[in-house]
Amino acid sequence: MKLFLFSLILSLSLANTGWTETTDSLKYINATNLELIGKGFSETTTHYERLPTSLEAKTRPAVWWLSKNCSGLAIRFRTNSTLIAAKWEVTGDVVMNHFAPSGIKGLDLYGLKNGKWQFVNSARPSGKITSATIINHMSGTDMEYMLYLPLYDGLVNLEIGIESTATIGNPLIDSPRKEKPVVFYGTSITQGGCASRAGMAYPNQLSRMLDRQIINLGFSGNGRLDLEVAEVMADIDASCFVMDCLPNVSVAQMNEKYAHFLEIIRKKRPDVPILLVETILFPHMYFDQTVFALLQEKNEVLKKIYTDQKKSDKHMYYMKAEKLIGNDFEATVDGVHLTDLGFIRISNFLYPVIRKLIK
Amino acid sequence: MKLFLFSLILSLSLANTGWTETTDSLKYINATNLELIGKGFSETTTHYERLPTSLEAKTRPAVWWLSKNCSGLAIRFRTNSTLIAAKWEVTGDVVMNHFAPSGIKGLDLYGLKNGKWQFVNSARPSGKITSATIINHMSGTDMEYMLYLPLYDGLVNLEIGIESTATIGNPLIDSPRKEKPVVFYGTSITQGGCASRAGMAYPNQLSRMLDRQIINLGFSGNGRLDLEVAEVMADIDASCFVMDCLPNVSVAQMNEKYAHFLEIIRKKRPDVPILLVETILFPHMYFDQTVFALLQEKNEVLKKIYTDQKKSDKHMYYMKAEKLIGNDFEATVDGVHLTDLGFIRISNFLYPVIRKLIK
Repeated sequence: MKLFLFSLILSLSLANTGWTETTDSLKYINATNLELIGKGFSETTTHYERLPTSLEAKTRPAVWWLSKNCSGLAIRFRTNSTLIAAKWEVTGDVVMNHFAPSGIKGLDLYGLKNGKWQFVNSARPSGKITSATIINHMSGTDMEYMLYLPLYDGLVNLEIGIESTATIGNPLIDSPRKEKPVVFYGTSITQGGCASRAGMAYPNQLSRMLDRQIINLGFSGNGRLDLEVAEVMADIDASCFVMDCLPNVSVAQMNEKYAHFLEIIRKKRPDVPILLVETILFPHMYFDQTVFALLQEKNEVLKKIYTDQKKSDKHMYYMKAEKLIGNDFEATVDGVHLTDLGFIRISNFLYPVIRKLIK
Repeated sequence: MKLFLFSLILSLSLANTGWTETTDSLKYINATNLELIGKGFSETTTHYERLPTSLEAKTRPAVWWLSKNCSGLAIRFRTNSTLIAAKWEVTGDVVMNHFAPSGIKGLDLYGLKNGKWQFVNSARPSGKITSATIINHMSGTDMEYMLYLPLYDGLVNLEIGIESTATIGNPLIDSPRKEKPVVFYGTSITQGGCASRAGMAYPNQLSRMLDRQIINLGFSGNGRLDLEVAEVMADIDASCFVMDCLPNVSVAQMNEKYAHFLEIIRKKRPDVPILLVETILFPHMYFDQTVFALLQEKNEVLKKIYTDQKKSDKHMYYMKAEKLIGNDFEATVDGVHLTDLGFIRISNFLYPVIRKLIK
């Protein structure tokens, strides 16, 4: 029965031989044969990228390089295997001193249980190439899965392993829903720094909460209002644009480019809600007076930009930083980057707001 | 004035020359000259260790090696410097794939503000030796600080840097209070795996919440009811013993040693509350049926041990796992080890219980 179903799915959905490899008792499927979600552009240089090839010659090298990090991308599939494994190779084998490798370059598996996405387990990276069992001893019921890709590294290759007698195929259920995704533009925090695993980055959490695909255009240290990024963002048939880039831009850059960035989006998407988010209040600013003054100034400048925009644009919205990450000063690893604690707080806070905007 | 105060503190509290080193505009103080808290035993091989030298020949090498990790230890001091820096050398330069280096071998600074400990900033490690500014641009008010030491590495040396004209000295305020500490015995989770920074490990959070020093006897993978550890634990004049070792012991080991371990403590501390904690319910157990069955069995066996003990021991207490880490399955990095999110949940849950036991 399992073999029959597997053959059926193979012929129905993949029409392709040579996409599996059997090793020991497991069968490996190249993930390029399964549905990839969270991708904003079809014309990319390799399969797992976040910006279109057309931007390579136009944008700054740092943005281009970061667009190869897989934040926001996930593989959707279903299987009746009692075990799920993965083999993957990352491009950079990135290491950071405030970020767990599991979040930087690991994988993170969720399963759809009673209509809700539930954490199954993460795959911890060994280095450039990893082979890992993610979960074992499951009941063998056919189930829908979502495997989040690395937040801060690129993928050369990914294969998903199942029992040799189990079936695997593309999902039957459209969740998170593909129609009109929410697009996030921002910084390292938007890209997911420093979640312990990919599923905890706030755009990924919001995707599950809203049951809506997201497009993650967070570029670590480089959410600097590059106008060519606005041009391609505007090509996405989005339900909402979330602008969360303030930590990466100076007040001068805000005054020079923020309104222009919005104008580019507005030219193609006149009616889509745009949510402008203040910079979070870094907990160390309550000791560092220079940081305190700078963040206050940025948020005042943003408020002014918003007030100006709002005069002629009724689809412009504003999110104050005040309660975004709680008020106990504990939500970051280094005063700046959010931990899973900070990410769950910001997700819970943004959820009702964005839900209303995309309804 | 600052220089005068500095000289005064130096002569009053340290009576020692050669303990500072001035580099550029900063002055470095060896932390051995400042108060070290969270240390259960005075007779240790080096300054920063968690078990007495007497155990080296008696306990397993793994436990002995882990006792050199500094989890639970912190430096207490006060200064009026507008900048605080640190230079430190770790013993192992430990790397793990599910744990941020900032938590493994970084430092984590808190300040006492309006009578409450508040996160200031963390110091991110560069490798075996690090020199880092933790916080800058402060007002220069004299203030009490607590610098948590690495959770999963040992310390060869630690120096705290301040402005060359500022004062530094031992604390004036006894917080967290030294009298009758709470002693935690347990596993990797107890040791702090996988907090993003040391202050978020649950024993350290509880120390701030209870305003009481803690002694962390969590040994990663090795909270296996070693009876010689019970012998030295019993030497501590504790307000409460928390037993949180279940993830590291088999059912056979529980049946063989758990009651004996308690008996050793009871011989010297007949009236001190002992809190037996069930194993947390690893989120991946809702998919892995083998893990599910094992954890259920361990908690049933613990319940039986507790029921037997309680018959003749009115100071024995029990904590069910049910709500310890929430019910959204999101509190771990890998199904097992808690993130800051899991640690804040377990702290909030244990806090009222332990507060009552130590009142």
